[in-house]
Amino acid sequence: MAGNTFGEVFKVTTFGESHGLALGCIVDGCPPGLEIDEAMIQIELDKRKPGTSRFTTQRREPDQVKILSGVFEGKTTGTPIGLLIENTDQRSKDYSNIKDKFRPGHADYTYLHKYGHRDYRGGGRSSARETAMRVAAGAIAQAWLKQQGIEIVAYMSQLGPIKIDTVDQNEIRNNDFFCPDPTTVPKWDEYMRDLKKQGDSVGAKITVIASGMPVGLGEPVFDRLDADVAKALMSINAVKGVEIGDGFDVVDQKGSEHRDELTKAGFAANHSGGVLGGISTGQDLVASIALKPTSSISVPGKTIDVNGEEQDVITKGRHDPCVGIRAVPIAEAMMALTIMDHVLRHRAQNADVNVSTPVIPGSI
Amino acid sequence: MAGNTFGEVFKVTTFGESHGLALGCIVDGCPPGLEIDEAMIQIELDKRKPGTSRFTTQRREPDQVKILSGVFEGKTTGTPIGLLIENTDQRSKDYSNIKDKFRPGHADYTYLHKYGHRDYRGGGRSSARETAMRVAAGAIAQAWLKQQGIEIVAYMSQLGPIKIDTVDQNEIRNNDFFCPDPTTVPKWDEYMRDLKKQGDSVGAKITVIASGMPVGLGEPVFDRLDADVAKALMSINAVKGVEIGDGFDVVDQKGSEHRDELTKAGFAANHSGGVLGGISTGQDLVASIALKPTSSISVPGKTIDVNGEEQDVITKGRHDPCVGIRAVPIAEAMMALTIMDHVLRHRAQNADVNVSTPVIPGSI
Amino acid sequence: MAGNTFGEVFKVTTFGESHGLALGCIVDGCPPGLEIDEAMIQIELDKRKPGTSRFTTQRREPDQVKILSGVFEGKTTGTPIGLLIENTDQRSKDYSNIKDKFRPGHADYTYLHKYGHRDYRGGGRSSARETAMRVAAGAIAQAWLKQQGIEIVAYMSQLGPIKIDTVDQNEIRNNDFFCPDPTTVPKWDEYMRDLKKQGDSVGAKITVIASGMPVGLGEPVFDRLDADVAKALMSINAVKGVEIGDGFDVVDQKGSEHRDELTKAGFAANHSGGVLGGISTGQDLVASIALKPTSSISVPGKTIDVNGEEQDVITKGRHDPCVGIRAVPIAEAMMALTIMDHVLRHRAQNADVNVSTPVIPGSI
Amino acid sequence: MAGNTFGEVFKVTTFGESHGLALGCIVDGCPPGLEIDEAMIQIELDKRKPGTSRFTTQRREPDQVKILSGVFEGKTTGTPIGLLIENTDQRSKDYSNIKDKFRPGHADYTYLHKYGHRDYRGGGRSSARETAMRVAAGAIAQAWLKQQGIEIVAYMSQLGPIKIDTVDQNEIRNNDFFCPDPTTVPKWDEYMRDLKKQGDSVGAKITVIASGMPVGLGEPVFDRLDADVAKALMSINAVKGVEIGDGFDVVDQKGSEHRDELTKAGFAANHSGGVLGGISTGQDLVASIALKPTSSISVPGKTIDVNGEEQDVITKGRHDPCVGIRAVPIAEAMMALTIMDHVLRHRAQNADVNVSTPVIPGSI
Repeated sequence: MAGNTFGEVFKVTTFGESHGLALGCIVDGCPPGLEIDEAMIQIELDKRKPGTSRFTTQRREPDQVKILSGVFEGKTTGTPIGLLIENTDQRSKDYSNIKDKFRPGHADYTYLHKYGHRDYRGGGRSSARETAMRVAAGAIAQAWLKQQGIEIVAYMSQLGPIKIDTVDQNEIRNNDFFCPDPTTVPKWDEYMRDLKKQGDSVGAKITVIASGMPVGLGEPVFDRLDADVAKALMSINAVKGVEIGDGFDVVDQKGSEHRDELTKAGFAANHSGGVLGGISTGQDLVASIALKPTSSISVPGKTIDVNGEEQDVITKGRHDPCVGIRAVPIAEAMMALTIMDHVLRHRAQNADVNVSTPVIPGSI
Repeated sequence: MAGNTFGEVFKVTTFGESHGLALGCIVDGCPPGLEIDEAMIQIELDKRKPGTSRFTTQRREPDQVKILSGVFEGKTTGTPIGLLIENTDQRSKDYSNIKDKFRPGHADYTYLHKYGHRDYRGGGRSSARETAMRVAAGAIAQAWLKQQGIEIVAYMSQLGPIKIDTVDQNEIRNNDFFCPDPTTVPKWDEYMRDLKKQGDSVGAKITVIASGMPVGLGEPVFDRLDADVAKALMSINAVKGVEIGDGFDVVDQKGSEHRDELTKAGFAANHSGGVLGGISTGQDLVASIALKPTSSISVPGKTIDVNGEEQDVITKGRHDPCVGIRAVPIAEAMMALTIMDHVLRHRAQNADVNVSTPVIPGSI
Repeated sequence: MAGNTFGEVFKVTTFGESHGLALGCIVDGCPPGLEIDEAMIQIELDKRKPGTSRFTTQRREPDQVKILSGVFEGKTTGTPIGLLIENTDQRSKDYSNIKDKFRPGHADYTYLHKYGHRDYRGGGRSSARETAMRVAAGAIAQAWLKQQGIEIVAYMSQLGPIKIDTVDQNEIRNNDFFCPDPTTVPKWDEYMRDLKKQGDSVGAKITVIASGMPVGLGEPVFDRLDADVAKALMSINAVKGVEIGDGFDVVDQKGSEHRDELTKAGFAANHSGGVLGGISTGQDLVASIALKPTSSISVPGKTIDVNGEEQDVITKGRHDPCVGIRAVPIAEAMMALTIMDHVLRHRAQNADVNVSTPVIPGSI
Repeated sequence: MAGNTFGEVFKVTTFGESHGLALGCIVDGCPPGLEIDEAMIQIELDKRKPGTSRFTTQRREPDQVKILSGVFEGKTTGTPIGLLIENTDQRSKDYSNIKDKFRPGHADYTYLHKYGHRDYRGGGRSSARETAMRVAAGAIAQAWLKQQGIEIVAYMSQLGPIKIDTVDQNEIRNNDFFCPDPTTVPKWDEYMRDLKKQGDSVGAKITVIASGMPVGLGEPVFDRLDADVAKALMSINAVKGVEIGDGFDVVDQKGSEHRDELTKAGFAANHSGGVLGGISTGQDLVASIALKPTSSISVPGKTIDVNGEEQDVITKGRHDPCVGIRAVPIAEAMMALTIMDHVLRHRAQNADVNVSTPVIPGSI
């Protein structure tokens, strides 16, 4: 079956193509009584809005979200919340040069073979534009989580070969890269300028952290918290890898080094990334993702067309040399959707659980 | 809600604790007419059976599987298949030394806080013993996939700091490590001996490959094939990271380097790992996972008990110094469950799709 | 979890309140390549449109549906179809007389206690206006089913105490009552005039028939075709009973009378209503539903208010004296959604099934 | 997809055929801390056990249930509960006379065409024997609901043409018919003796009532409480009709007669059956079902065989002349599963809801 719904209790179903009439989603299962309005959703949407950064696509899209239902007198009613963004920038364009070719690294070839035809206008449903509704729904989840004391923040931790050295969360919004390290910003800036000159693109790494986590979220053995985070983050366009806690560094770790000891003052470290046995520990939930370089570049490439004939392809137009940048608010949104869903799932079965054992603080 | 079911069409629901009466599962949604028997399931189960390798737990468990329903005259009937393994090695033991302590790196603390109490006998439901039923169900999926021309194989690609140099799939079953490189086997063997002396453990990396893949599997935008593979693999005990194709190497790749060009003879490379836009390309589906070191080690550690008091803990008994080894058949099983489910999901919506564009071969 | 989604493969999720900005739905899982447009959906919507019949609410609502996504070049793409109807008739009204009272027979009291508050404007989400989107989605399902040779028709078979005598499906659209018996129309007409004078309302019975059914739809043991039809029809506002085939008449039948014998020419009768063991037989699928009388009447009644104080209540305004009439296209829609979902579900698991036994015709 | 799972939070998945090795189920999502044991489940199972009543099948089946997992130290752990009943009465029989014939009124013909072959031994999966696991799981649900103050009871309200006159719930267990009216028992007894002589069977009507209901259960617009009750009850073998409250009697009721007025002392009546807008009112939840007469009778009938040739068929052996009797505990179980699932679903979204408006008592 088609897979346009995310979540089990807090369910988000999205629709819309990059060059269709509108994008929209239905958020079903939101607890009643939550104060939300269009302005607070817009703030999150604006983070990913093309034009915000010099290094993201300059296409102008106001992305004005409308709340169509599920909110009455400023509060959610518990009924489905309909959200809509009309596409204002859909003047007819000339797609003849890509209509019949499969752009390498894009979903053209796979969509055609899956569905029998494809919407070739700007990628159709496979466009990253679809993620706008994830961010809109994520804004609602973040508002609710904040009431529970849970906050989510993401940042770029590596751009191409250049890693950050330090993390100061206050710096993230002070630059065009969601970079938490001010000394790294000019290096990335210079790297990106070179890249644009080459007409090429590069990958990135993003780190997402949820703080204020309760103990007990996650539903083993399959719907473990880390498994659902992995799915949520891997479902973002261009993501090729997901790590929880130390991630791939664990391959070379010893057991005596990796296991986080418990003390009265909290866990002695957070190698686990805040999950044990698929259930949250109360420590920060830490995940990282790898994003591939943008496939739309002006460097020419080889491909085939719908008749199976070999062709050259070159992507014109304005494209982000690093899709990773715009993925930062999307990663926050997907993390928020996952955690909120798990808080509500946990309540369904375990609302009556009462444990005498003290909860220890997160990590020391 | 509790999360003990995997899959949407080919659904596997498991039950059972490490020291309970039995482990079991129900496989619902298997197409009728598939020839299966207990012997073919047993072959897969025996791959993960403790005692198979010198370096895995020596506890004797025959793990004899029984098919209780859903098969008539040697073939599946389309009705639910009940599978059962009785636990024969459950003599009463003395758990008093760990009953009240939270073992670092284990799920003791999180299970207690989630459910209000825990089954302290050998980890209860959080034990890796639960994965036996995944392997049993995976054997059924692998039999069906083989009929469709899809085969899955996994191997250890790194043990601690030591990586393999070459891959010869014929070598995988010739050693205790599921190692595809015979020259690496003695190195790992020596490394493991040292580790045992230290009473410590180490992590591992496993690679899983599905070949013979059709084009078109995966359900964007959330139930993408790569997203569901990520969830499936991250749900395996001890896994902390998942990669598709080049994985985290993409962070430092250029677009011109990463994108796989298309030619009549096939894709020019497989950086993508066989997925574009969340849909299979027909290339090999390639994933890698990172497994943390075993938490049960004889090196003493610090922890707290159920009263919040600080305690020392040491794990006695026989434990695998590298859980990664036993995870190889589990990774194959989870990959098989995911792909089979997606083949059936694809049929539900797209059974009538007919594309004139030729399918190109996998990678050249 | 909230329950605004219907179907497993062909999934319909609706949003919108009677007096909000808009109603909408997402249809996910529609096979690609189906020709649909707004005009064909509008035809179904117009059947339930207030103002169509003299005996249904006279409020003017154009109910113009827009397709926002999922259709490209006149055909479905396989991606989610977004549908929207803007509410044009939402001028601010004075709800002060009902804002704090619970109207008897309405969902005011239950919504308040479930969600903590309620949208008192015209019933909010509990209004029958919500069913517009079911009809819109049902129009898509009916178009697809027609291609498979399956057609669905519903009619009123009883209004208050007056039953129809004969069924001529060609007559159904020739009167305001969806009545298949032209001799009954004037009787119902007179009965309704009297009812309006009394300011009272009455119940109705509707019969729904799907013809051209294949053998084999339905997923025992829980998602039987008849069980899912029962749920679908009972989910329509005001429905209090569902029958399959002979329904409650079976209580007094003998086994020798009820069981439908099989002959080469087809089943000798259709007491079963086209389902055996929860699976379609290939006969007509026949269901009946009972609809309660409209609760909004001008006969005064007793109730309590939000403070628990007793109050008198009287419903002003224009209301249908028989909600059953408008439910006819809704019943067709819900039947279509159920059958289409089951065709696709059946394909998922059983696409390869090939039976040598001949399929016999429906009923003789 | 196959449909052997019931429920969204409290999920029950069953397996097993009438003449296979065993029947079993997995109950996933049960809140932890509930005291259950095999004896309490056995009490419910024994109610439907063949041989309990003179008028039900005399085949001896001990139906001894075993709890295989999910319970530790007498309490549920929150992990999946595995239940098993081994089939002890499966000596090889001679099925040659029915192997190739489709018994009228049975699922032989539909199973063959759905799955491509069928398990002809006693009906295989379509046998009512499957319902044993529903009753076992229902026993757990009833235990939990009792803690919440909710109790469920069902009784036969009509057997063939003979209705009960009064309801005394204390009488239900005092006779072989689950009859709440002692004066009716001898009439039914005599009617059944005659029926046995004729070798024929008859239908029945069962009423199910849940008392102690909270206000607020049910998830509009599709997963309404009444809709899910309708599905649950219609999924029971032989059921052809479901009513909520006044059911089909509403067709001939006036609005002024049907709507239940609210007073401080409670609802003035319970025509609605305890549901308004798909949400429970706090009144008794009342449902009725119609069960068709047993199809296996010794009166000869006509049918076709697997080659499409016409044949005579006669069912030998001991069969219930009224399947309705054994359906009473099954109806209780399905009602319990539905309500428990909805209590847990409601918690997921609405755990924080706090309403100042007083809850009025059920009905006066």
